[in-house]
Amino acid sequence: MQALAPGSIIGILGGGQLGRMLALAAARLGFKCHIYNDAAGPACEVAAAATLGRFDDVEKLKTFAGAVDVVTYEFENVPVAAAATVERITPVRPGLKALQVSQDRLEEKRFVSGLGLPVAPFASIESAQDFATALRAVPLPAILKTRRMGYDGKGQARVATAPELPTAHAEIGGVPATLEAIVDFGCEVSVLLVRGSDGETRFYDIPVNRHDGGILDTSRVPCDLCERHQARAKAIAHTLAAALHYVGVLAVEMFHTGDAAEPLIVNEFAPRVHNSGHWTIDACAVSQFENHIRAIAGWPLGTTERHSDARMQNLIGADVGDWRRLAGEPGACLHLYGKAEARPGRKMGHVTWLKPRTGGP
Amino acid sequence: MQALAPGSIIGILGGGQLGRMLALAAARLGFKCHIYNDAAGPACEVAAAATLGRFDDVEKLKTFAGAVDVVTYEFENVPVAAAATVERITPVRPGLKALQVSQDRLEEKRFVSGLGLPVAPFASIESAQDFATALRAVPLPAILKTRRMGYDGKGQARVATAPELPTAHAEIGGVPATLEAIVDFGCEVSVLLVRGSDGETRFYDIPVNRHDGGILDTSRVPCDLCERHQARAKAIAHTLAAALHYVGVLAVEMFHTGDAAEPLIVNEFAPRVHNSGHWTIDACAVSQFENHIRAIAGWPLGTTERHSDARMQNLIGADVGDWRRLAGEPGACLHLYGKAEARPGRKMGHVTWLKPRTGGP
Repeated sequence: MQALAPGSIIGILGGGQLGRMLALAAARLGFKCHIYNDAAGPACEVAAAATLGRFDDVEKLKTFAGAVDVVTYEFENVPVAAAATVERITPVRPGLKALQVSQDRLEEKRFVSGLGLPVAPFASIESAQDFATALRAVPLPAILKTRRMGYDGKGQARVATAPELPTAHAEIGGVPATLEAIVDFGCEVSVLLVRGSDGETRFYDIPVNRHDGGILDTSRVPCDLCERHQARAKAIAHTLAAALHYVGVLAVEMFHTGDAAEPLIVNEFAPRVHNSGHWTIDACAVSQFENHIRAIAGWPLGTTERHSDARMQNLIGADVGDWRRLAGEPGACLHLYGKAEARPGRKMGHVTWLKPRTGGP
Repeated sequence: MQALAPGSIIGILGGGQLGRMLALAAARLGFKCHIYNDAAGPACEVAAAATLGRFDDVEKLKTFAGAVDVVTYEFENVPVAAAATVERITPVRPGLKALQVSQDRLEEKRFVSGLGLPVAPFASIESAQDFATALRAVPLPAILKTRRMGYDGKGQARVATAPELPTAHAEIGGVPATLEAIVDFGCEVSVLLVRGSDGETRFYDIPVNRHDGGILDTSRVPCDLCERHQARAKAIAHTLAAALHYVGVLAVEMFHTGDAAEPLIVNEFAPRVHNSGHWTIDACAVSQFENHIRAIAGWPLGTTERHSDARMQNLIGADVGDWRRLAGEPGACLHLYGKAEARPGRKMGHVTWLKPRTGGP
């Protein structure tokens, strides 16, 4: 594809903090941003234009699509129909396939395992009729997860013994779900890659992630995985990105089991910039946000090298009340998303601590 | 002063690329920005709000002042009367004194020399009647500079011999001017400091600057000045900032003569973030833009340490046409200002190249 000239307009579906950081990165490169979202959000305050409209308002979506040069999305629960409406007028990157697969947990599992990539044993549960089959396929303890709209640990219930399954299913609303074996893992890592429109793929260093109550708490680079395991993790993500004909930043979360034969198990992927890559803003010359913009604009990819070691900590809910202290902490790079209300579980900002780089070339 | 809470609104007088980069830095900290300018500009596209109005429109200025929590300016030719109108309603930082002094070259020279700081011999020229006196006070060759509205080498004429003075004065429009001796210097450096509302002052590493046709071309850190000379340069800038009761980022351009007794001569200062500090975006955890916002918002200052060596190159006028190649150059951090028309002499963007840090703490 032809590279979009500076001054071109990038449309973003969604108006949250990821959209905000994408818009800030786009502005650095001389692009204008136009946000489409169902409500005003953090991204609107730093964008040249914003359209507030429902994701099923076909006319508004068409007008939006006609006003921009390329469209991306900042959350994976954008309705596929909305993206399809836009795509009839303007290119959508990273494409509809990634969106459609990633927003349905069963499709995602089937897609990843269909590529021969390692996933935990899983089964589909549509209704109570599937309980017995699922329990035969999936060793316990397991996790029951809604197929759609799950994020940050929402829509999940633990199943330790077979009799718990009906209760767990009721707990998540009785909706279509997947039952997934709980993997015995040492740590969780994520592979962040950027893939250009010509298929060139670059990888950021792999962070190790710690969750708290289902929500990402910290990400740290470098991680402790040996080189062979890191190479395997990148190869898995590479295969996935290629199969999706992906353009942009892709995040693949994996469990590191350390098992000799298959040290990594894919948990899920996000077809977008990812919270576990926020450290790249401060620790890399080109952040995940800028590289996403570069990729969708048909630009050459930027370096993914890190100049510093980094630890990123999320500020969730009331954590943000600590901003005064954090603002004064030497070496803390503070990022706040401009959200007014610090509700429990809400991502309000993050802090990245930098240290001189250690390890490898 | 009380630190402004995230979500507060920062008003910026002026809408150019410095305002744009200030707005991007403010957004990182969760602030909203409101631009006031006489025309739409690069800053408006990344701000939550913009008011377009003349700088003598008192009512509009008052409404603007009432809508924001603190005001700063991004160019030193904002009319003092406009800033004064705003200040009656909302604090203006870095204050009116710095604005007033820096926008009149004669006042600036008198102020700096009045503090006992080293400046080149200078004289005031109001009209032809002052020629003889000026030529007695200032050794030739010298430069004639308009007192007001000079920047990027505009409003200047060289005077090699006494008979050239009338022609030179006509050339710059016969307006009030200063005649300044040309300093025989090795290089030009600038001191970039940030001073908090409590007087705490931090210094970025000193860049060495190269100009081309009166416009900054490149800035590079670290510079080659010995530690003693760097300390002297910082002490000069510190004295100046304190005398101005300065709050925010101040840039002081100096000639390095290498003279044993007085190695540095102040050329001029800018009461704002400065082009020679653009490398701090990529080479420091906290950029000059973020530190300016921190200071005017009453926040603790951020670190001024650099994690990388850096060379910043301006993209002037048609230079920006090279964006495709620069976008693909490994290690180049590209910044474009979103200006549509690449007029000669117009600052369109800049590139910073990073290298692993050399030299002591």
